[in-house]
Amino acid sequence: MTFRLPEGMRTPTLVVDLDIVQRNVNQMTEMSRTRGIRLRPHAKTHKTLELAQLQLQGGACGLSVATIGEAEFFSQAGCTDIFIAYPLWANENAGERLRHLADNIKLSVGVDSLEGAQQLAKAMGSGIDSMGVLIEIDSGHHRTGVEPALAGVVAHAADAAGLAIRGVFTFPGHGYVVNARESAAQDEAQSLRVAVGALDEIGLCVEVISGGSTPTAAFTQRGMVNELRPGSYVFNDANQVSLGVCDLEDVALVAAATVVSAHESNRFVLNVGSKILGADCPPTVVGYGIIPEFPKATIISLSEHHAVVHVPRGESVPKLGSLVAVVPNHVCNSVNLADELLVVKEGSSVERWCVAARSVNSY
Amino acid sequence: MTFRLPEGMRTPTLVVDLDIVQRNVNQMTEMSRTRGIRLRPHAKTHKTLELAQLQLQGGACGLSVATIGEAEFFSQAGCTDIFIAYPLWANENAGERLRHLADNIKLSVGVDSLEGAQQLAKAMGSGIDSMGVLIEIDSGHHRTGVEPALAGVVAHAADAAGLAIRGVFTFPGHGYVVNARESAAQDEAQSLRVAVGALDEIGLCVEVISGGSTPTAAFTQRGMVNELRPGSYVFNDANQVSLGVCDLEDVALVAAATVVSAHESNRFVLNVGSKILGADCPPTVVGYGIIPEFPKATIISLSEHHAVVHVPRGESVPKLGSLVAVVPNHVCNSVNLADELLVVKEGSSVERWCVAARSVNSY
Repeated sequence: MTFRLPEGMRTPTLVVDLDIVQRNVNQMTEMSRTRGIRLRPHAKTHKTLELAQLQLQGGACGLSVATIGEAEFFSQAGCTDIFIAYPLWANENAGERLRHLADNIKLSVGVDSLEGAQQLAKAMGSGIDSMGVLIEIDSGHHRTGVEPALAGVVAHAADAAGLAIRGVFTFPGHGYVVNARESAAQDEAQSLRVAVGALDEIGLCVEVISGGSTPTAAFTQRGMVNELRPGSYVFNDANQVSLGVCDLEDVALVAAATVVSAHESNRFVLNVGSKILGADCPPTVVGYGIIPEFPKATIISLSEHHAVVHVPRGESVPKLGSLVAVVPNHVCNSVNLADELLVVKEGSSVERWCVAARSVNSY
Repeated sequence: MTFRLPEGMRTPTLVVDLDIVQRNVNQMTEMSRTRGIRLRPHAKTHKTLELAQLQLQGGACGLSVATIGEAEFFSQAGCTDIFIAYPLWANENAGERLRHLADNIKLSVGVDSLEGAQQLAKAMGSGIDSMGVLIEIDSGHHRTGVEPALAGVVAHAADAAGLAIRGVFTFPGHGYVVNARESAAQDEAQSLRVAVGALDEIGLCVEVISGGSTPTAAFTQRGMVNELRPGSYVFNDANQVSLGVCDLEDVALVAAATVVSAHESNRFVLNVGSKILGADCPPTVVGYGIIPEFPKATIISLSEHHAVVHVPRGESVPKLGSLVAVVPNHVCNSVNLADELLVVKEGSSVERWCVAARSVNSY
């Protein structure tokens, strides 16, 4: 791993390697460009102004976000094209905030039901024309989204309620499984194809066909999907490494930790826990993160402020007081716990990025 | 469940019931008082000034915290007696901050190794006399802490380095298992007894014998333990309910969520995910939280902004747009994600508490 931590730094701290993050941004931009697909990165991963700027300057067409609060933050920060990739259930307050956003930027939001569309139209009232709507399709992840064949029913209701249909979107989250990345991308394309057909049938023009996730991005079917919304690729994490999406060399964010306790030759404890790393434990990863310097080590348990690490007998362990880097399992949740990220270049601190949209996780 | 949410509220939001939280504080205070054990609640659970005041006004002797940052926050807020219940590995910066704290309040910190004690003494320098040290003992949780019989070795080194030994402490975290609460409390008492004996042998006076956790508190052995550090009891959570520590009626904090999607008769999706609840999935709980209003429902998966809920066929499900309360699995991590908590009394909002020490999770 090329990641180098500044010596003597305060721990635990989330640290970003500027060269790796820039390389990750460039690679995804290039991959999208060569396929003729617009890139609309999901900003929920980083929640920082600096990374949004890197992405937009690199050629992203706009940002995806998960909440109205995130849209407000990135709009105020200068992003003029935002998609809230979520089937909002809009109350009056949400309607007011969406109207204000749509007055100032190009805004789209998700809808996945007839009732949701009617509720959104009611909440928006007179501002309804200025905002675009994308119908969410379930392409196999079985979270939110309507069955592809029923996309026309929802779109028809949304259209009848006065909403401006701009397209369809899906999240192929079932690609977060070993060996399922390519087939999930195929499901994505097939589901979007059916949904686009359903909208065509009722005479609705489809401008945006949006898919994508970091694991499936490389398999996106050109010609069917015209917009991609990957998020984690900027940093990558233990889950992406375990899925084979990237190598450890591509991980741009680690938690810097200190060995605070060691009472057995094959066990030590780091001062990093679920309040820094997050408690995610995806099925692909063994333990609560990867320790690149000790590849045979496993974080067998994680408390709020402790990571208990086991190594096989005979393997070396770090000394008490040592600085150790941990790759989080799910980087979006780790970043969301931090107020700021320490940015390093060739092992030296160069700046700090504020996780400015950290707390805007409500509507 | 007696918890009532204000109608029409913005979601997702963490909501605290004032009457229940007050009752929980009173019960633990009373339980400790009748046993003649000092109560030093762990403030990492709530990180709020308001709850610290409730605890201290109720008779707590001081607070336990996990980081120097938490100690600084609660010290500035007026708490004059704080124990950092963590085996700190202190660098120069940490030493300076500890000196400053110890100049202003009664401060104790944890140590669990000879090297840690020497490092702490070196970092503290001249301020060493004003701060107390408690030796951490492993009573069976196998996280941090020295073997009880070796407590004297660490205490001797700490004493020789000039640190002021004030006592011993342990966290009986192996009581976080069904039917293990009482035996973990027995281990706690036995381990502390051995450790106190080891310190007696080398002529060190033991003032503080500190144990405790929410699951084991009711089984604490009077006469052996003289100080208790439970944290979660103020709010309780799904894990405490599943362990049999409390009933659903004793849960003082929920995440208020909205049903945003429902495409099958036995499945619905809430707008609450791991960025509100935390991703903890303790072995005692089925799924990612408890939904009191739908006791047969299971949160089968949790994304950052979605909880996918399954109910058995034939059971009722909430309508799209409904307000639903979710009890988090691990309340300490949920609270640490929020900037503020909405406080309600008999179903009406009465105030907001700032989670003011939210981000101070580094040394």
